[in-house]
Formats: sequence, structure tokens, C-alpha cells
Amino acid sequence: MAPCASLLLPVFAILATLPVIQSVPTFFPRPSYDQSLAKQPKASKPKIPYKTHYFPQVLDHFTFQPKSSKIFYQKYLVNSHYWHRGAPIFVYTGNEGDIEWFAANTGFLLDIAPKFRALLVFIEHRFYGESMPFGNKSYKSAETLGYLNSQQALADFALLIRSLKHNLSSEASPVVVFGGSYGGMLAAWFRLKYPHIAIGALASSAPILQFDDITPWSSFYDAVSQDFKEASLNCYEVIKGSWAELEALSAQNEGLAELSRTFRACQDLHSLDSVWEWLWSAFVYTAMVNYPTEANFMMPLPAYPVQAMCKIIDGFPSGASKITRVFAAASLYYNYSRAEKCFKLEHGPDAHGLHGWNWQACTEMVMPMTCSEESMFPTSSFSYKEFAEDCMKTFGVKPRPHWITTEFGGKRIDLVLKRSGGNIIFSNGMQDPWSRGGVLKNISSSIIALVTEKGAHHVDFRSATKDDPEWLKELRRQEVEIIQGWIDQYYPDLKRTNKE
Amino acid sequence: MAPCASLLLPVFAILATLPVIQSVPTFFPRPSYDQSLAKQPKASKPKIPYKTHYFPQVLDHFTFQPKSSKIFYQKYLVNSHYWHRGAPIFVYTGNEGDIEWFAANTGFLLDIAPKFRALLVFIEHRFYGESMPFGNKSYKSAETLGYLNSQQALADFALLIRSLKHNLSSEASPVVVFGGSYGGMLAAWFRLKYPHIAIGALASSAPILQFDDITPWSSFYDAVSQDFKEASLNCYEVIKGSWAELEALSAQNEGLAELSRTFRACQDLHSLDSVWEWLWSAFVYTAMVNYPTEANFMMPLPAYPVQAMCKIIDGFPSGASKITRVFAAASLYYNYSRAEKCFKLEHGPDAHGLHGWNWQACTEMVMPMTCSEESMFPTSSFSYKEFAEDCMKTFGVKPRPHWITTEFGGKRIDLVLKRSGGNIIFSNGMQDPWSRGGVLKNISSSIIALVTEKGAHHVDFRSATKDDPEWLKELRRQEVEIIQGWIDQYYPDLKRTNKE
Repeated sequence: MAPCASLLLPVFAILATLPVIQSVPTFFPRPSYDQSLAKQPKASKPKIPYKTHYFPQVLDHFTFQPKSSKIFYQKYLVNSHYWHRGAPIFVYTGNEGDIEWFAANTGFLLDIAPKFRALLVFIEHRFYGESMPFGNKSYKSAETLGYLNSQQALADFALLIRSLKHNLSSEASPVVVFGGSYGGMLAAWFRLKYPHIAIGALASSAPILQFDDITPWSSFYDAVSQDFKEASLNCYEVIKGSWAELEALSAQNEGLAELSRTFRACQDLHSLDSVWEWLWSAFVYTAMVNYPTEANFMMPLPAYPVQAMCKIIDGFPSGASKITRVFAAASLYYNYSRAEKCFKLEHGPDAHGLHGWNWQACTEMVMPMTCSEESMFPTSSFSYKEFAEDCMKTFGVKPRPHWITTEFGGKRIDLVLKRSGGNIIFSNGMQDPWSRGGVLKNISSSIIALVTEKGAHHVDFRSATKDDPEWLKELRRQEVEIIQGWIDQYYPDLKRTNKE
Repeated sequence: MAPCASLLLPVFAILATLPVIQSVPTFFPRPSYDQSLAKQPKASKPKIPYKTHYFPQVLDHFTFQPKSSKIFYQKYLVNSHYWHRGAPIFVYTGNEGDIEWFAANTGFLLDIAPKFRALLVFIEHRFYGESMPFGNKSYKSAETLGYLNSQQALADFALLIRSLKHNLSSEASPVVVFGGSYGGMLAAWFRLKYPHIAIGALASSAPILQFDDITPWSSFYDAVSQDFKEASLNCYEVIKGSWAELEALSAQNEGLAELSRTFRACQDLHSLDSVWEWLWSAFVYTAMVNYPTEANFMMPLPAYPVQAMCKIIDGFPSGASKITRVFAAASLYYNYSRAEKCFKLEHGPDAHGLHGWNWQACTEMVMPMTCSEESMFPTSSFSYKEFAEDCMKTFGVKPRPHWITTEFGGKRIDLVLKRSGGNIIFSNGMQDPWSRGGVLKNISSSIIALVTEKGAHHVDFRSATKDDPEWLKELRRQEVEIIQGWIDQYYPDLKRTNKE
């Protein structure tokens, strides 16, 4: 059986460009997988109560060359409805995508803003959304993409926040940073590297330990599998067995034609890879968003979608093939609204394009992943050599696999942060496969891990709903209490400093 | 009377290139002022018990471009005489000059190495000494100099230390960083930004608060003046009055010729400026090295050289001119060994050249300074506009005057570091004018300020001598005790982590 790595990358057998790079799942699915979003007209952006601004940002904070002092316009969103001068500023440190999307999916901040009378600011990450340093040439080559990385992004946040506070004549306002997923990594790192700008950070589902050899490489896919296994052992076994069945069928005469029909492909399939990738995406991303309520985060899905998928798989009559079952389960992910007549399992060479996250994964964000025997995916190993070769071929750069842990740490993190740092919440839900690379234990009295058994990918950041379970309400209550504690500490500290 | 700024910059009336940039004193005098050193053959490097190594270092840590992954060779020195695997590693974070010179003048580390069984490592700062990323073209233009800055330097240290520990198979060794002056700023910032690499920092005479408006701009020259005033009020008044006397004389017919004779100039003087600069250097740098014992740090000097200078000034018969007195006082600085027959007061256009510190001062290290009415120098203000224009003219770059405080903080530092950071000693001697920009009060139980009334520029880092006063011995004893405390805390922490 082909390794997991190639499972993840069916398109690239055709493209022959990006094979191993994409063995790392993105935090969010590519638009190409996301049929419903793809259909939405570009104009129908989520309606959110924020005003859009643009900040003249420095292209390169860390060299001082005439050309690197180039400016670009960085987008940020502001809601000042509840704020007054001197009150807290809550900043969302944007991740790899349009900032509106993160604002729309971080209702938590709007929910808590009145209590804190907080200004809300969502800052878009450079090279995503509209914040393109070189306009539509930003992704042209390594020459331009070179400026896309987390350290430059953190410095962007620092400069923008400082300028914003100055312009608001509110330099003494305490700033708390928030982020989910990669944005959560940025929030945590921002508090560690810029404690003079943010008094604390809430990092939700931030896998800052997914680097080097800190977290076992198989943990991500083991966790996905664990979710399905917990929902139903049979479900797990059906999925685990489906890959061989698929391979056997595709090897037969007319096998691909039959698969095209079974998977209701809009166009005839050319290889098994696209089916694998299509299924893989459905299972991985459904595990990530295994939320306790109906939600439309990446796709519209019912409450606890993993359980719903397994119910479908288990619900077939005993004679049904594994292929039929996994197709039906994946359809829940792609077609919960039942609007799809057929599925676009194969996408053209442009669909993947030079997505920003691929670049980041090929330079600093090297997160090796494998599929173990325990997982429900075909086993696979990680070859750094192949990975590096692909990155070189695609982008002309060599990854720096140890750079993130050199720049931000991570090894023996409890030993380190016990004696430095402070005021960080790491929240993780164990349903989320990314949780395994997160901080899951308290480090000090002010570096706190909040872990929920039933939580998924930054579930705490979603708007409160009437259906929220108690554990979720309690999680958010704890977060608010801790943040309140930082702020209650800050103002007397400030007063004392001003007196001296 | 001409302002202090132009006092500092006599040469530039001729060069018309770098006027305002150099109103900031360097931490150490330029070679051109340093007649004794200039005479030494290049080969006679200080004899120090270190082995020289070269590390293949990344040129640009913060962009990922094919050309920025260029490698250069960074020099570092190692003494492993007392060390065994697992024992502490003491790293000196090199500043703006040859690393041998800092090693030779930081005998403190050799003195304490046996007690800690420490490995000693001195890392040269990029763009200084032999660590030239572009060989002899390193200072050619902003294109090359762009990579010379403190953030790149800190990342260099991080990469080198991590690689060194790996190669020594001693990853668990605790690292403590040490630095004096700009090197002390780097040590403190390194502990703040890379707590996962260094468990603590001893930052001696590190003016990390000399930026923006944190420290009053006049404090540096006020402190120099204070040293002289404390030694003798008359001495202070003679120096304060000498500038007007010099100006009056130089305005007379044959005034410059008379000054050339009085100042024993090797070549006839073309302007008063060189005399001013010559005197200014003598007073400023003597205040910095107002050590309690005879020393040969920048120049051979007697114990408490400020007092010695004032004794000379006060010792003249009452009719003697101020000019004669200040010349005699400055001669102590330039000619304590009495080997000089004449003084090179004017130096050619190349002497200043594109020194690395000028570049750093024109980009990130913007430390505005003025001379107040209280100082013994002619009053002067700081014009950021002029400064920026000069930097643009000289290097083609615009300074980023608020960047250091954005990147490293400094404003309300006690408020910030009380809730983050830890394990830093800031040591300052109040004789040192740079002390005014240092951290002079304890911030937390592990961020400690050690202040001595009689100390000068990183006096604690000099080798112990039999003549050291009690307060200096006590200062070093406290430093050793605190560092011992960090290490005593580290090993049990590590043991606990390994068990988990």
C-alpha cells in the first residue's frame, strides 16, 4: 500500500511538483477542497461589525537596506463600540488567510468585549488576504515570498499595535493578544517575544510543540484515528480497511470508471490519488472541527460530525462495501446541505498554486508527520531529504527544520517558561488532532493549560450559542477569569510605576 | 559658543559627511584617537588562553531568500580547560570590535571558570573583527551593511550556541550569557528573547534604556561632568571654562599656530574642532574608565584617572591658563606612558571611515544626547531631522528611532519585566556615564540591579587584582552567588523534567 504521504498528495502525482510538502495538513483546508466556499461569489464576505483600516507596514524589520524599508499596506479591522480611552485592547494575531474570515469565526471576542469594554482589533497576516507586500506579484518567487515568515509577522503586529495605541492616545491601555491555530502560535510567541507590548495571550489550539522531535511524529494522525475509534470501533476499522479496497478496485479494469461513478465525480477520475485525498481531507478536517454544536466553520456540519460520520458508516447493511460507506461518510463533510450534484475530486494544477502556507512549510514551519500502524490511514514515514528536495524544486529554498525551535524554543518548554515568561493561556480540545502538539499541562502559576476532553480546533473562540454544553461554557468562563486577573493586576502595577 | 554636537565632530567640518551621527559617543574610542594602540603592530594581539574557531553562520535569519541563506564564517573563542560534559557554558555575547579584545578585557570569566567548571565561549559580533559576511566588501554599502544589526546578531548567538552544544553532546548544559556595554545589552536582550537558550544573563554597564525618551537626553554628559565635579569643583569649572578660552584664542591672529604649539600637534592645526574633539574624547573616555586600579583598558591609565586629571588641573599655579591645564589633563589620557613626543590631533578622512557602529547608530541604535547647562561641555541640542539627513547622506538609510523600544521594550521596564522574564543581573557603576541609561533598581526577585557608587564601565568584568577595593570584590562575589543560584535551580528543574 502506498504511504500516507502520497495519500495526502494525489494531485502531485500529476503535477509532479509538490509531493512531500503537503504531507503536512494545513490548519484549514485549501479552497479547492472547499466546494461550498468556492461557489460563493467573492463579494459575499461575512458580515462582521468591524471597520477596515490599512497600516503602512515595513517590509523587512530585520535588515536595514534601502529596498527593505519598502512599505506595504497591512489590513486590520477595528471594533470600538465598547471601548473608551485607557480600557483594554484585544488583538487577534491573524493567521494564514483573509482576516475577515478569522473575525467572523472568533465571535468569542465580540461576546466578551462589553465586559472588558475592550477595543477589538484583528490584524491580517502579511502575504494573506489583502495584505500583499508586492500586490499580485507577492507569490511570484522566493525573492518576494522571502519576507513571508512568522518573525516578520510578529514584528508587524508590534509596530502596528504601538502605532495604534499612539494614535489613540492610549499608550497605557493593556493589550491582550488572541489567536487560534497558527494564529495561536503567533499569539503565544508574541507574548514571549514582546511582553512589553502584550500583557498576556490566549493561544487556542496552538501546536507550538509540533516541531523537531518534541512531539511524536505520528501523533497527529493517531489523534484523528482516535476520534473515530472513540466514536465507533467498527467505523475506525471500516476507514482503515477502505484504502486497500480502493486500491484493489482501482487496479481492476474499469476500476477508475467505477470509482468515478461511486464517488459521483463531476469528471472522470484519472488516478486513485484524488479519491484518497478527497477522503483524507474529509476525515482530517472533520476531526479538527468535531464541535459539540452545529457549525459552519469550514463547511456546514452537524453537531459532533465525527460521530455523525460513524453513524453513517455503521448504519449500512452488513453486506455494504467499505468504499460505499466511506463515500457516504465523506459526503457528510462535502455535502451536508445536500446541494451538490457531483463532486470535484480532481482540481487543475492551479488550484494548489503557490499557497502561502506551502511556502511557510518549506522554510520555517517544518512539522514532520507520519502515519503509524495504529492510525486508520496507510502507514507512512517522513523523509526530510525528499521534503527538502521538493521545497528546493518548488520554491528554490532549503527548509530550516530546526529554526523554529531555535527562535522560539519548545524543547523542555516547562523547564524554560517556569523561570521566564508569564500570562499565557494555552487552550486545547483533545478532539482536535493539533492538540497533541500543544501545551497540555500548566507550566507556572501564570502559564496555564486549559484542556477539554470534548473540545475541537479552537472551539472556545466560536460565538456562544444556546446549545453550548456546560464544559464549553466553563472553559470560556475560566478564560475570562484569567484574563480579568491579568488586567486587575496591570492597572495597580501601572499606577505604582507612574508614582515612582 | 558652538554647540556640543559640533564639538564632538570637528573632523566633519572638513569631511562634511558625518556631522550629527557622531554626537553619540561610541562605547569605545575609535582607533584614530588611540595613539598607543595605533602604533602596535597588527600581529601583537593580546595573549589569551582561548582556541579560535569559525562557525558557518546564516547571513539573514529573518528572510528566506536564496541569496540570504548565504553563509559567512563567524569567529568564536573557546576555553575548555575547566569544563566537563554537562557542566555550565558561559558565553560572552561579543560587541562592536575584535573578539580577542573583549576576551582580553573580560578576565572575570577566566577567574570564575574553575569554580563553575565552565566552558568559556566568546562569540564575535557579525561585521566586526574577522567576522565579515562579505569579506573586505562588508562595509561597502547599505546593501551589505543592511545585515549588521542587533537582532541578526542575537540570532547568530542562538544558532551558534545550539550547534556548539549539539557538537559537544552537551545539550542539557545550562548556558549563562555575559556582556559588557553594547555586549551587555545583547546579553540582556538575549536572555529576554531566547530564554530557551540561556538560563540567565549578566549584563554589565548595559544602557538598554538610552533610547527614545526613556532616559533624559542630557544624562550622559551630565554624568561625565558629575565625575569631574565630584573630584574637584575647580577642575570642573576649569574644563567648563576652557572651551570659551579656546574659541577666543583660535579667533586671534596666529591663534591656531599657538594652539598647535600648546597642544604639541604633530602637524599644524587647521581648525579648532580637532582640539575640541581631542579634549572631549579624553574627558569622556576617562570618565568611562575611572577604575579604582591602574589599568590598560583603552589606554594605560593610573587608578581613578579622573581624580588624577583633576589633580593635574588643580596643581597648576594660580596664573596658569585654562588651556594649559586642560592640555596637561588630557595628556594623562593620551600619554600616561610618556612615550609620545607629539599628538596627532587631526586625522585623515579615512580614519573614521564607515565604522560599524556609525551604521548601527544610523539605523537602530539611535541614542539622542544633548549637553545641558549643568554639563562641563558647551550646551547643545539634538536635532533628529539633521541626524536623519546625515544618515541618509552617508549610508542611504533612514534611522528607525523607535525600533529598539518596539523590538526590545524599555519603556516602563519594571512594569513589564515584573510579570515576564527572569534571571538577569544588571550591574552598573555610577562613575560610568552610560550607567544613567542602565537598569538601576531591582525589578523582581530574579531581575537584579547591582549598583556601585565607585564603579566605572564594566569594571566587574576586569581580572581581579590584588589592589581591588572591597566594594569591587563584594560586587563580584554577589554576581557569582546569583549565578550559582540560577545553576543550583537549573539542575533539579532539569532532573524533574527528565523524570516526567
